Amino acid sequence: MTRYKITIEYDGTAYNGWQRQKDASSVQSAIESAIASFCQQDVVLFCSGRTDSGVHAVGQVAHFDLEGDFDPYKVMTGINNYLREQCLKKIRGISNALRESPYVLEKLAYIPIQDIIILDCETVNNSFHARFSAKKRFYKYRILNRKRPSALRYNRVWHVYEDLNLEKMQKASKLLIGTHDFSSFRDSDCQAKSPIKTIDEATLYKQDDEIIFEISGKSFLHHMVRNIIGTLKMVGNGKISVADFGRILKAKDRTKAGVTAPASGLCFMNVGY
Amino acid sequence: MTRYKITIEYDGTAYNGWQRQKDASSVQSAIESAIASFCQQDVVLFCSGRTDSGVHAVGQVAHFDLEGDFDPYKVMTGINNYLREQCLKKIRGISNALRESPYVLEKLAYIPIQDIIILDCETVNNSFHARFSAKKRFYKYRILNRKRPSALRYNRVWHVYEDLNLEKMQKASKLLIGTHDFSSFRDSDCQAKSPIKTIDEATLYKQDDEIIFEISGKSFLHHMVRNIIGTLKMVGNGKISVADFGRILKAKDRTKAGVTAPASGLCFMNVGY
Repeated sequence: MTRYKITIEYDGTAYNGWQRQKDASSVQSAIESAIASFCQQDVVLFCSGRTDSGVHAVGQVAHFDLEGDFDPYKVMTGINNYLREQCLKKIRGISNALRESPYVLEKLAYIPIQDIIILDCETVNNSFHARFSAKKRFYKYRILNRKRPSALRYNRVWHVYEDLNLEKMQKASKLLIGTHDFSSFRDSDCQAKSPIKTIDEATLYKQDDEIIFEISGKSFLHHMVRNIIGTLKMVGNGKISVADFGRILKAKDRTKAGVTAPASGLCFMNVGY
Repeated sequence: MTRYKITIEYDGTAYNGWQRQKDASSVQSAIESAIASFCQQDVVLFCSGRTDSGVHAVGQVAHFDLEGDFDPYKVMTGINNYLREQCLKKIRGISNALRESPYVLEKLAYIPIQDIIILDCETVNNSFHARFSAKKRFYKYRILNRKRPSALRYNRVWHVYEDLNLEKMQKASKLLIGTHDFSSFRDSDCQAKSPIKTIDEATLYKQDDEIIFEISGKSFLHHMVRNIIGTLKMVGNGKISVADFGRILKAKDRTKAGVTAPASGLCFMNVGY
């Protein structure tokens, strides 16, 4: 058995998240099908961090084992070719179904030719595990903070039209750094053994009309980043103070914190091993 | 008659460019229909710079005249609401047509709810003309320069997988600054009276895995920026030298220059008045 480590970029818009599910599309099953088709082997993919429906990734890492000794470059192009074919097949399927209503056909140009792309593939030692060997995970969240939404950044940002106070949000985000019980930002579906997590970095900055939040740590609870963002927004628009944010963190009570920010603004950036 | 100046962002992917055409969708006719529907008046829109099929804009400026005295904010929201309705109607149209083939429906999430957005609207003096009053136009071109394409930046960049030499491209781009006969970069369909144009700035820089080109000047020839990019790419991959680029500019001969770079990488940034 040879173990392969792949780095993946995907547009999460059309997927029900990373994890394989019955009757719903997932990034995991799309890639597993691609590998099966290329190598004629059923594989199980292990990723470094599962992403939710609509969340993107530019540096997701996963591993799988194959019988035999396939060249990693050929594995990568094999998977990519299959993924592209699948996307093209769906676009052709839509086109055919729409033959009777050509007035909507132009909009199909928006559908990407390939929404999952393997960026890199290498063989690794069998002791490597995409999830358990991960030492650090990096996420980025983009808030578009202006009056009008964006025609070019739909599905990439959270549009918040109220003025957000960057400085206050920065102060609040600093309170996240260190080891805390993050129950206030934990989804009720979260399966983690403990709500205690360590945040290494939490940085907030302005880039043109966006407020960007970058956070890293060994691991995260379910919906943790999006729940933090939903609460940081309340600091930004003045609904709560920086001190309130600190109290919410200490309360260990999900009902005290803000809404779960939309998935579209979140991107899984990369993993440190 | 009151003159209104609007600032527009659009995703050009699904449009046959700015200009109104028979039997093809255009940004101009989409906005004109929206104004007509909102104000019950037939208007003609004048823009600062027409964009080609697939080219984007974040700061396109246009003007139009209305009988009466509509509040500019209401004009803006009126147009925006109509544009959003039209997009939703098309998406519903596709959904209905696809009722028989649900396996492709998920991909519809990629279609933006609104691909033309009015960012700003104000009344201006009748002497203002979006095109003739413009003193400077700013364009940006994005090249994604890495081995693999991007799942998240499709329709936003030109993917060039060969290594491009930034320094050489920067040297070549500096040769564009000043007043020149740009016939070598002029499309055969160009209707400009003179091929002589003045370039104020031409800047090339790296941003993560992208090479960004920013260019500004009073006006441009048809396809000029994209033809320049197609030729700068040849400098970057070593097909021609920086001196060759200078010779091509001086040759005033379109056949000497490179291909027209794809529309998807180009964005009309803003206009100076």
